[in-house]
Amino acid sequence: MEKQINVGMLGFGTVGSGVATMIRENEKQLSQKLGAAVKIKKIAVRNIEKNRDADINGSELTTDINDVIQDDSIQVIVEVMGGIEEAHQAIEKALKASKAVITANKDLMALHGHSLLKLAEEHQADLYYEASVAGGIPIIRTLEDGLASDRISTIMGIVNGTTNYILTKMKEEGWSYEHALKEAQALGFAESDPTSDVEGLDAARKMAILATLAFSMEVYLDDVEVTGMTNITAEDMALAEQFGYSVKMLGFAEKDEDGVDVAVEPVFLRSSHPLAAVRNEYNAVYVYGDAVGETMFYGPGAGSMPTATSVVSDVIAACRNILLGVAGARHIDYVNDRQIKKEDQQHAQFFHRLLVKDKIGVFSSLTDIYGKYEASLSSIIQRPGEAEGEAEVILITHPVSRKNHHKIIEELNGSDVVKSIISQYRVEGGDR
Amino acid sequence: MEKQINVGMLGFGTVGSGVATMIRENEKQLSQKLGAAVKIKKIAVRNIEKNRDADINGSELTTDINDVIQDDSIQVIVEVMGGIEEAHQAIEKALKASKAVITANKDLMALHGHSLLKLAEEHQADLYYEASVAGGIPIIRTLEDGLASDRISTIMGIVNGTTNYILTKMKEEGWSYEHALKEAQALGFAESDPTSDVEGLDAARKMAILATLAFSMEVYLDDVEVTGMTNITAEDMALAEQFGYSVKMLGFAEKDEDGVDVAVEPVFLRSSHPLAAVRNEYNAVYVYGDAVGETMFYGPGAGSMPTATSVVSDVIAACRNILLGVAGARHIDYVNDRQIKKEDQQHAQFFHRLLVKDKIGVFSSLTDIYGKYEASLSSIIQRPGEAEGEAEVILITHPVSRKNHHKIIEELNGSDVVKSIISQYRVEGGDR
Repeated sequence: MEKQINVGMLGFGTVGSGVATMIRENEKQLSQKLGAAVKIKKIAVRNIEKNRDADINGSELTTDINDVIQDDSIQVIVEVMGGIEEAHQAIEKALKASKAVITANKDLMALHGHSLLKLAEEHQADLYYEASVAGGIPIIRTLEDGLASDRISTIMGIVNGTTNYILTKMKEEGWSYEHALKEAQALGFAESDPTSDVEGLDAARKMAILATLAFSMEVYLDDVEVTGMTNITAEDMALAEQFGYSVKMLGFAEKDEDGVDVAVEPVFLRSSHPLAAVRNEYNAVYVYGDAVGETMFYGPGAGSMPTATSVVSDVIAACRNILLGVAGARHIDYVNDRQIKKEDQQHAQFFHRLLVKDKIGVFSSLTDIYGKYEASLSSIIQRPGEAEGEAEVILITHPVSRKNHHKIIEELNGSDVVKSIISQYRVEGGDR
Repeated sequence: MEKQINVGMLGFGTVGSGVATMIRENEKQLSQKLGAAVKIKKIAVRNIEKNRDADINGSELTTDINDVIQDDSIQVIVEVMGGIEEAHQAIEKALKASKAVITANKDLMALHGHSLLKLAEEHQADLYYEASVAGGIPIIRTLEDGLASDRISTIMGIVNGTTNYILTKMKEEGWSYEHALKEAQALGFAESDPTSDVEGLDAARKMAILATLAFSMEVYLDDVEVTGMTNITAEDMALAEQFGYSVKMLGFAEKDEDGVDVAVEPVFLRSSHPLAAVRNEYNAVYVYGDAVGETMFYGPGAGSMPTATSVVSDVIAACRNILLGVAGARHIDYVNDRQIKKEDQQHAQFFHRLLVKDKIGVFSSLTDIYGKYEASLSSIIQRPGEAEGEAEVILITHPVSRKNHHKIIEELNGSDVVKSIISQYRVEGGDR
C-alpha cells in the first residue's frame, strides 16, 4: 500500500482553502514526486457551520485546535489561522510533539521566530515559513539555499503590495493618495484600517525576518527604523522624476563590519534600479551578495493562490524530509553575533525640499548647517517659491549618518532662514 | 575530530578558481552550516605548470581526470572543465562510483541531461547543475523546490547576456549592432566567435534545460525552434518603441493541453512586461504558474564569481545530503509524457514590416493573404516608402499558428504587390 502523510490545518480562510485546493488538484503529481500520498486529515475552524459547504474533500472539521495537534496520525501542521497568541501556542505544542510546522504568519515569525526555530531544532522538527514574506516569491529558500554560499551585504525590498500599488497609481494615473488607497481597499489589497501597511509596520516585520536569515543573526522587529508613507505627495513624485528617481516605499537590510542596519522608509530610488520597475501590487526583493552581485526576485506578495503556492511547497519539503527520515536536521544556529548599528553608524543619502526666505545669505546659512554635521551635498537647486519673498531649495546629500541627519533636520527647523521642511526622503541607487 | 568532505575539481579556469576562492574564504561559515569541513583535495588541470602559481591552498594538482574521480576519499566532483565528450565520460564515471556531481556545463546538460540524471538516480548520487542556466540566478532550485507545488504554464527568459547587452546598447546608446558586439567582446561578455550567442543556440540549450524541469517532461535541444538576432536593426527598435514595445532576444517554453512549445527568437516585448526592464548583460527568467501567477528571477547570467556562487550552493546541498545519508534520494521521473507541439499547434503573434507597391488594391491583396491563413490583424499602419511608388505597411497579427505564419511569409514573398519583407518579429505581452 502507498505511504500516506497526514496534514492538519489550523485555519481555513482564503489562504487555507487555497492550500486545500492545491493539494487536492495536484494529488497525483505530489504522490509521484514524493512517493507518498498527502492528505489533509483535519481542519480546525472557528465555525463549523460556516465551513460545512466548503470543498473540504473528506477532511474532518473541528473547532478544537488540540484535536488537530494531538492527532498522532498527523505529522504536518499548516498554520494559516493568523493572529499571535493562539497561533504561537499551537505551533509550540506542535513542535514539541515533533511535528513539522508550516506557517504563513509574518507577525508571529517577526516576534517569535527566533525562539520557535530553536524549539523546532530541539525537537527535530521542521519549521518552514516561506509564505510569511512576499507571498508567492520563494525568497526564504533562495536565501537559505540558492545563495547559501554567498555573503549577502544588502537586501532591498518592495515587500508591501498595498503601498506599492498606491505609489504606482499616484505616479502613472495621477491619482491622489486617498483615491489610490480607496481603490486598493476596493480591490482587496488594503485592509479597511490600512495603518500597518502605510505606516511601514507590515514591511518592517518582513524585513526583520529577511535580515535574520540573510545575515544569520538575531534581528528583532524593534531593530527596524520605520517611517510611514503618508506624507508622500504628487508634487514630490514629479520632482523625483525630474531628478531621475522613482518614489518607492522600501525595506532595507544592510550589513558591513560595523553591524546590521534595517529600515523601512519612503525613498527616492534611481529609476534605472531594477526595483524601480516593480509596479502595482507586486513585490520584489533585491539581494546584493559579495560574489553573486545584483539579483532580484519578483512576484505576487499576497493573494490566496500565490501564498498557497509557498505553503504547499513547504509542505512538500517537510513531507520529503519526513519520508527520508531527516526532519529537523537543518542547523539554524546563527553564524554572526547580534550587532545592530547605532544611529551614528547608519549612513544614507537624503533628499530635502525646503521653503526658505528669499534673501542674501540663505545659501551660506544652509550650507553651514549641513557642513557642521559632515553632510556634503551632491545637488543643490533653488527655484522661486509660490509666495513673494520665498524660495524653494532642493538638496541631495552624500551619505551622512542618521544621527547627524536628525540634527540637521532639527537645526533646519530652528533656523530663521528656513520657513518649513516641505519633504524629506532617503535617496538610493544614486552612485551605482 | 570534525568530519570532512573532500571535493575534487575537474577544470580550474575562471569559474573553477572562483569556486576554490569561495570555499576557502567561507571555510568557517561552511563548516558551521554543515557541521563538517569542506576541502578541495584534488584539481585536474590541463597544464600543471600554468596553474602552479595559482592560489590552490593545499589542493593537489593533477593532469589525470581519473586521479580525481577514482580517489576513494573524494565524495563530491565539481565539473567546470567545459566541453562535451571528456566531461560526459568523467561525469558518468563519477556517478557510477556514486559520487555527487556538480556541473556548470549547459552544453552537456542540454545534450545528455536526461540520461545523466537517470544514471545519478540509479547510483544514488546527486547531480546538481544550478550554474548551467543563468549563472548566479538560483532558477533550477526555484523550479524544483520553490514552485514545486504549482503547475507552470510559461517560462520566458533573457538567458543570454551577450545578446541582451547588445540590444540594450543599440537602444539606449544608439550603437550599431557591430559596435555593440565589439564592445561586448572587449568587456569579455561575448566570445571572439559570437555565433552561438547571436544565433540563439546558447539560449536554446538553457531553454531545453528549463523546459524539462518546469514541465517535468523530456525536452531536447532539437525541440527548440531557434531564430537568431543578427537581422535586428536600429530602425526596428525605434519602431518597436513607437508601438510600446522593446526588442528583446527571448527564450520561450510554454505548455498547454496540446503539449510543449520551446523557442528562442527576437521579440517585440510589451514595455510594461517585467522582462523589458532587464538591461545590459543581466539575465532574468520569468515564470508564470497557474497558482502563483507572474514571477521573475533576475541576476547575473555569467561571470566567474556569480557562477561560482551557484556551484558552491550546489556543493553545500550535496554535502548536506551526504552527511544526512540521503544522497541521490530525489526522484527525477518525469511526470508528463513527452508531447512536443507541431508547427500547426504553436501559436504566437507576429509583427511584419513590408515594403509594398503604392497602388490601389494593395491593402485588400495583403489582407486576403492573412485571411486565407486565419490570421486576423490587431494593427495595420501604412506610411510612405523612401522611393516613389512605394509604401511601407506595418502589421501586427493576433495569435496565428507557426505553420500558417510560414505560409503567410511564403505568399507575401511570392506576391506581386510586396517588394520585400523588411522585418518580422514575434510579439509578446500585447494582451496582458
